[in-house]
Amino acid sequence: MKCDLVIKAEYVLPMDKKMSIIQDGLIAINNKIIIDIGKSGELEKKYKPKKIINAGYGIALPGLINTHTHAAMVYFRGLADDLPLNIWLEKHIWPAEKKYVKPQFVRQASELACLEMIKSGITCFSDMYFFVEQTIAAAQTAGLRIATGEGIIDFPTPSCRTPKEAIKKTIKLINRYQNNELVKINFAPHSIYTCSKHTLLEVKEAAVDKNSLIHIHVSETKKEKENCQKEHQLTPVAYLAKIGLFDQKVIAAHSVWLEEEDLAIYKNKKVGVSHCPTSNMKLASGAAPLPAMLSGNIAVGLGTDGAASNNTLNMFQEMKITALLPKVYNLKADIAKAADIVKMATISGAKILNWDNKIGSLEVGKRADIITVNLNKPHLVPCFNPYSHLVYSATAQDVEDVIIDGEIIMQKREIKTMDEKKIIYQAKKFNP
Amino acid sequence: MKCDLVIKAEYVLPMDKKMSIIQDGLIAINNKIIIDIGKSGELEKKYKPKKIINAGYGIALPGLINTHTHAAMVYFRGLADDLPLNIWLEKHIWPAEKKYVKPQFVRQASELACLEMIKSGITCFSDMYFFVEQTIAAAQTAGLRIATGEGIIDFPTPSCRTPKEAIKKTIKLINRYQNNELVKINFAPHSIYTCSKHTLLEVKEAAVDKNSLIHIHVSETKKEKENCQKEHQLTPVAYLAKIGLFDQKVIAAHSVWLEEEDLAIYKNKKVGVSHCPTSNMKLASGAAPLPAMLSGNIAVGLGTDGAASNNTLNMFQEMKITALLPKVYNLKADIAKAADIVKMATISGAKILNWDNKIGSLEVGKRADIITVNLNKPHLVPCFNPYSHLVYSATAQDVEDVIIDGEIIMQKREIKTMDEKKIIYQAKKFNP
Repeated sequence: MKCDLVIKAEYVLPMDKKMSIIQDGLIAINNKIIIDIGKSGELEKKYKPKKIINAGYGIALPGLINTHTHAAMVYFRGLADDLPLNIWLEKHIWPAEKKYVKPQFVRQASELACLEMIKSGITCFSDMYFFVEQTIAAAQTAGLRIATGEGIIDFPTPSCRTPKEAIKKTIKLINRYQNNELVKINFAPHSIYTCSKHTLLEVKEAAVDKNSLIHIHVSETKKEKENCQKEHQLTPVAYLAKIGLFDQKVIAAHSVWLEEEDLAIYKNKKVGVSHCPTSNMKLASGAAPLPAMLSGNIAVGLGTDGAASNNTLNMFQEMKITALLPKVYNLKADIAKAADIVKMATISGAKILNWDNKIGSLEVGKRADIITVNLNKPHLVPCFNPYSHLVYSATAQDVEDVIIDGEIIMQKREIKTMDEKKIIYQAKKFNP
Repeated sequence: MKCDLVIKAEYVLPMDKKMSIIQDGLIAINNKIIIDIGKSGELEKKYKPKKIINAGYGIALPGLINTHTHAAMVYFRGLADDLPLNIWLEKHIWPAEKKYVKPQFVRQASELACLEMIKSGITCFSDMYFFVEQTIAAAQTAGLRIATGEGIIDFPTPSCRTPKEAIKKTIKLINRYQNNELVKINFAPHSIYTCSKHTLLEVKEAAVDKNSLIHIHVSETKKEKENCQKEHQLTPVAYLAKIGLFDQKVIAAHSVWLEEEDLAIYKNKKVGVSHCPTSNMKLASGAAPLPAMLSGNIAVGLGTDGAASNNTLNMFQEMKITALLPKVYNLKADIAKAADIVKMATISGAKILNWDNKIGSLEVGKRADIITVNLNKPHLVPCFNPYSHLVYSATAQDVEDVIIDGEIIMQKREIKTMDEKKIIYQAKKFNP
């Protein structure tokens, strides 16, 4: 049978419900869709593909999903380190944003972020920033799948004078991209400490009307929680539940300072969490209760956060840190196991973005978002368990090929869609 | 003036006392020794080198020093994950060692470890294992600098029937390598829970006699501390102080569970700590009191530990995790700052190995152990602060060139001393 593309690898990890490990596996793709997956032997005879990617001694798995980032902030990477969130934000990031964040800046910086993400095996990212149309344009050039929304904040942002304007813009973008397979528009109110109840209710109304997701920072720092308790006698989660935000589907980024009642609300209201441990560690925000979230059946995806607080968009590093932090925090080594972490970086990420009908696992009928990881490296042999290597040993630069929506975006680490040298050259010129 | 080698880079970080940052810097090397370092301009006219390495838009810095590892355990990478130290050790690692650890195993596995370490910018490692002559041979082939000692344990090891035999072997090795610039032999008693007081005192006597370092695991787990308190009414550190082990210079690996009195002992006795945060997190051993150690002027180097509990020998990852863990543990973002972390990975590592008269910084008269890091990568631009990029953004695979004792061991990621493909091929065949 003719088809567009066949991918072969020593290990294929479909991330399906059975958590299959297919040794010497094959994936067949036609018209952007996965049409077959299984052991190589018989399937290889069945298909006559236009193109073949043979990953050899490597792993093929679903593309990684970065569920919380601010792509354009890559230009602020390393601008201010070793500072707590409030000082970092108020004294360094906000002033820099005020000075530099213009459409051309967001476009160029987003292109750099897309380049970095593709090269580290990310095929889909969930963003929140300003001049969001520029980040969408960069993602379209790159061939990356994007979920995003214009940042909604009560004070004037570089791109919108009022939250109303940002909401209006979001609605326009939803209408524009409703039939685009690679773009999903969400509402992106920043947080409870930058958005009034009035703003949040307007967001919710619009999100219900457009049947869209809401992506918001929740309970990131102890200070945010304590201030909310002072003002409303409620935790941030309970406050958002009370005003009804969770009646619509929400991605709650960070979610570090949670009470048991908060976890119960998340479970009842099907709130998805974007877990960002590196950023939470670097800004000393805290350690999120990951084991409780997982045992409570809350959907948790992983996020790198922006590169200004990480300082990379590296989901391999995020996976390793996701595994390590709860072990030491709870003095319990048998939690946050490797296979569960890979799930968070793929199918669970798709779930919290409401995109798991299309992506997040390699199953017949799903869009073909696939990466391969090369195990022929000194730090990746021997291999007894591919999940273990993905989480504990591989780095972003072991990603070899990236396929998004059936298109080969990177092959043998060469990007097909963008001019890597030019993008790096532009970034080096940015000198605040 | 003629010289053997000149290295140029956008940033040269000598890791000297002033923590200089030389922009557009140059290092001149002759006869294995650094003979000059400074701004490129005038120096470039002064020297006529046989070879030039121009790192361009990159960083040149001292080679990284891995102060605690068990090189040959790379063959057990990913064999058993997500388990606490005692089960991991007793149910998985010790049985595997009993079955597989033979001279040829240690030689081949150590070659893989050397390959991995060179490719991630490590120029010197401090090891502790069995059949240590095989690991020394691998390091000599690789051109790596090594500090090591035969593992001393009360029960029979794969290589020695008794601790006495291991001590004797260590003494022989000290005599054999006393004039070798690249090899330093230490005494390596495993721990207080595998070595009796009698054994430890024999080690100390021999170490005093040969004026050698002692490298030992100390207070790695809560269980180790509690058992020691039960048996001796003392913490492991106080116990070792009481029996006099610290009268000789000691590297105390891990040092997780420390009381204030333990820190005072370390300071008084000039005990060096090998801090291994990734292994301590993965085995759920605990979070060492790094801020207290640093503010108490205790010398702290970094160690990856063996690849069976990490699961890589990647000092870049170790640096990042060293920076992140104390921030979240103490909810304080302005501790464990990037430049201090790079210090730990270089000059402080040399100090705890008693090798800082020769290596650890780029200063005139020191042996030339130098690496370059390529910043022309999507995840490393823009660059405002080279220390920040080394700790928070760079990965092992950004290391471009490795020079050890004046020899070019890796150039543009190509290893000059070993057959990379053959070593990887051998490792893939190991299938327990």
